[in-house]
Amino acid sequence: MKPTSDRVVIKSAPAEEKTSGGIIIPDTAKEKPQRGEVIAVGPGKKDNPMTVSVGDTVLYGKYAGQEVTIDGKDYLIMREDDILVVI
Amino acid sequence: MKPTSDRVVIKSAPAEEKTSGGIIIPDTAKEKPQRGEVIAVGPGKKDNPMTVSVGDTVLYGKYAGQEVTIDGKDYLIMREDDILVVI
Amino acid sequence: MKPTSDRVVIKSAPAEEKTSGGIIIPDTAKEKPQRGEVIAVGPGKKDNPMTVSVGDTVLYGKYAGQEVTIDGKDYLIMREDDILVVI
Amino acid sequence: MKPTSDRVVIKSAPAEEKTSGGIIIPDTAKEKPQRGEVIAVGPGKKDNPMTVSVGDTVLYGKYAGQEVTIDGKDYLIMREDDILVVI
Amino acid sequence: MKPTSDRVVIKSAPAEEKTSGGIIIPDTAKEKPQRGEVIAVGPGKKDNPMTVSVGDTVLYGKYAGQEVTIDGKDYLIMREDDILVVI
Amino acid sequence: MKPTSDRVVIKSAPAEEKTSGGIIIPDTAKEKPQRGEVIAVGPGKKDNPMTVSVGDTVLYGKYAGQEVTIDGKDYLIMREDDILVVI
Amino acid sequence: MKPTSDRVVIKSAPAEEKTSGGIIIPDTAKEKPQRGEVIAVGPGKKDNPMTVSVGDTVLYGKYAGQEVTIDGKDYLIMREDDILVVI
Repeated sequence: MKPTSDRVVIKSAPAEEKTSGGIIIPDTAKEKPQRGEVIAVGPGKKDNPMTVSVGDTVLYGKYAGQEVTIDGKDYLIMREDDILVVI
Repeated sequence: MKPTSDRVVIKSAPAEEKTSGGIIIPDTAKEKPQRGEVIAVGPGKKDNPMTVSVGDTVLYGKYAGQEVTIDGKDYLIMREDDILVVI
Repeated sequence: MKPTSDRVVIKSAPAEEKTSGGIIIPDTAKEKPQRGEVIAVGPGKKDNPMTVSVGDTVLYGKYAGQEVTIDGKDYLIMREDDILVVI
Repeated sequence: MKPTSDRVVIKSAPAEEKTSGGIIIPDTAKEKPQRGEVIAVGPGKKDNPMTVSVGDTVLYGKYAGQEVTIDGKDYLIMREDDILVVI
Repeated sequence: MKPTSDRVVIKSAPAEEKTSGGIIIPDTAKEKPQRGEVIAVGPGKKDNPMTVSVGDTVLYGKYAGQEVTIDGKDYLIMREDDILVVI
Repeated sequence: MKPTSDRVVIKSAPAEEKTSGGIIIPDTAKEKPQRGEVIAVGPGKKDNPMTVSVGDTVLYGKYAGQEVTIDGKDYLIMREDDILVVI
Repeated sequence: MKPTSDRVVIKSAPAEEKTSGGIIIPDTAKEKPQRGEVIAVGPGKKDNPMTVSVGDTVLYGKYAGQEVTIDGKDYLIMREDDILVVI
C-alpha cells in the first residue's frame, strides 16, 4: 500500500468518550482533532520530504482526508500537511 | 499511447457490487474511490517525477479524470496527483 | 509558423460520425475529446520542455485552444498542457 | 522605446475585410486573433527569456494588450505570453 | 510532541485583565494579539527554516491556530507564520 | 529616498492637453497611460533585478501606484511591473 | 523583540496636522501613507533578505500592519512589503 506524493494512510482511533477526569463528552463537543496511527507514507515532494513515519500516532483535523476501504478495512488518506502533530 | 506531462491513462475496474462479507451495496453507497489499472504514464514534471508505474492497481476519486475512447476502448486520463494510493 | 512559449498549433480532424461498430453518433454524444495532428511546437518553458512533436496525433478537450486562420487554413492553438495524450 | 519585463510593443495591422476567397467579412465575424508587427521587445524574466524578435509578424487575441500613443503613433503593449504565434 | 512542517505548539497565557496603569480592561477591548509560550517546534520547510525556539514568549493573532488537547492539557497548534513577534 | 523591494518613485508629468496635431483632448479621452520620470529605484527582487533607471521617462497605467508626499512634493510609488515602457 | 519572518516592528509618528505651507489638514484628507520609525526587523525570507534597518524612517499604507502593545507601548507589526519607501 503506497500512497502517492505527500499522502499518508492512517488508521483512525475511535474518539475518546471520556475526559481524563472521567466525564462523558457529549457528541457536539467531540469535533476536536482526531487521533490515528500512520500505516503508510508516500515518497513526498521534491522540496518537502516526509517527516512522519509508519507507526507514528498523529492528530489531524476532523474533516481531513478521504475514507478508503482496502481489503475490507477502512483507512483515511490525507496529505501530510493535514497532520497537525505527532504525539 | 503517451500521456503528456504528469498524466496517467487508467483502465478502470467495475465497482464491486458486494462487500467482503457478501452484502450487496446499494448505488448511493458506491461513491467511494474507484479502482483501476495504470496503462500508460506521462514523463512527469521537472520537480515531481512520476511515482506510479504501468501495471499498478490504484485508487482514485470517483470524479477524477476525463474519459477518452482510443481504438474503441474506454480509458480515464487523470493527473498522477488525482491518484490516492497504489495498492 | 512558430508558436510562443508552451503552445502548439494543431490541425483538428473531423469528429467521427460512427462508432467502431458502425453506429451513427448523435451530436450530443460527440462532446468527447477531439483528435488532431500537431503542426508546430513552441520552445517550451524553462522548467517544462515540450514533450509532443510535429506529426503527433493527439487528443484534447473539446473546448481547448483558440481558433486561428493562417493563409486561409484553420488551426487550433493551445498550450501543450491542454493535450491529454499522444496516440 | 524599451518595454519592461516580458512586454512587447506591437504595431497592429488593420483587420482584413475580405477572406482569401474575396468574400467580405461582416463586423461580427472579425473577432478573430489580430495580426501585428513587433516593434520592441523587453528584457524578459529570469526563467523565461523572450522568444519573439523585432520585426516578427504575430497573432494575438483581440483584447490583448493596452493601447499607448508614443510620438503621435498608436501602439499596443502586451506581455509576450499574450502572443499566440509568430507567422 | 513533534509538530509537522512549519507548525509550533503553544501554551497560551491568560489575557491580562489590567493595563500597566492598573485599569481593568473590559472584554470587548481584549481582542488584541495573544501571548503564549512555545512548547514544541516543527522541522520547518525547505526554504524557510524555523526561527522561533522552545521557551520563546510570542504574540499571535487572536484567531490563530487550532486548539488541541494532549494528555489532558490544552495547547494551540499554529503555523510559525501566524506568530507576529518574539518578545 | 529608497523604495523597498521592486518599487519605483515617479514624478508624474501633467497630462498633455493637445494631440500632436494641436487638437484639444476632452477629459474623457485622457484616460490613457500616464507619463513620468523615475526618481528612485528599489533594490528589486532576487529573481527579477530592476530594469528601469533613475531619470528614465516611463509610461504607466492611469491608476497605477500610490500617491505620497515627501518634503512637500507629490510622488507616485508603484511596482516596476506597473510600468509599461521606457520611452 | 524579534519579529518573525519578513516582519518589522514600527513606532508610528502622529499624522502631521499642517501642510508645509502651514495649512491645517482636515481629517478626511489625512488618509495618506503614514510615517514611522523601524524598531525591529525580522530575519527575512530565503529569497528576499530584508532591506530596511532599525532606525529607518518609513512610509506605509494607512491600513498596513497590526497593532500590538508590548510593555505598555503601542507598535505596529507589518510585513516589510507593506512599507512603501524609506525616506
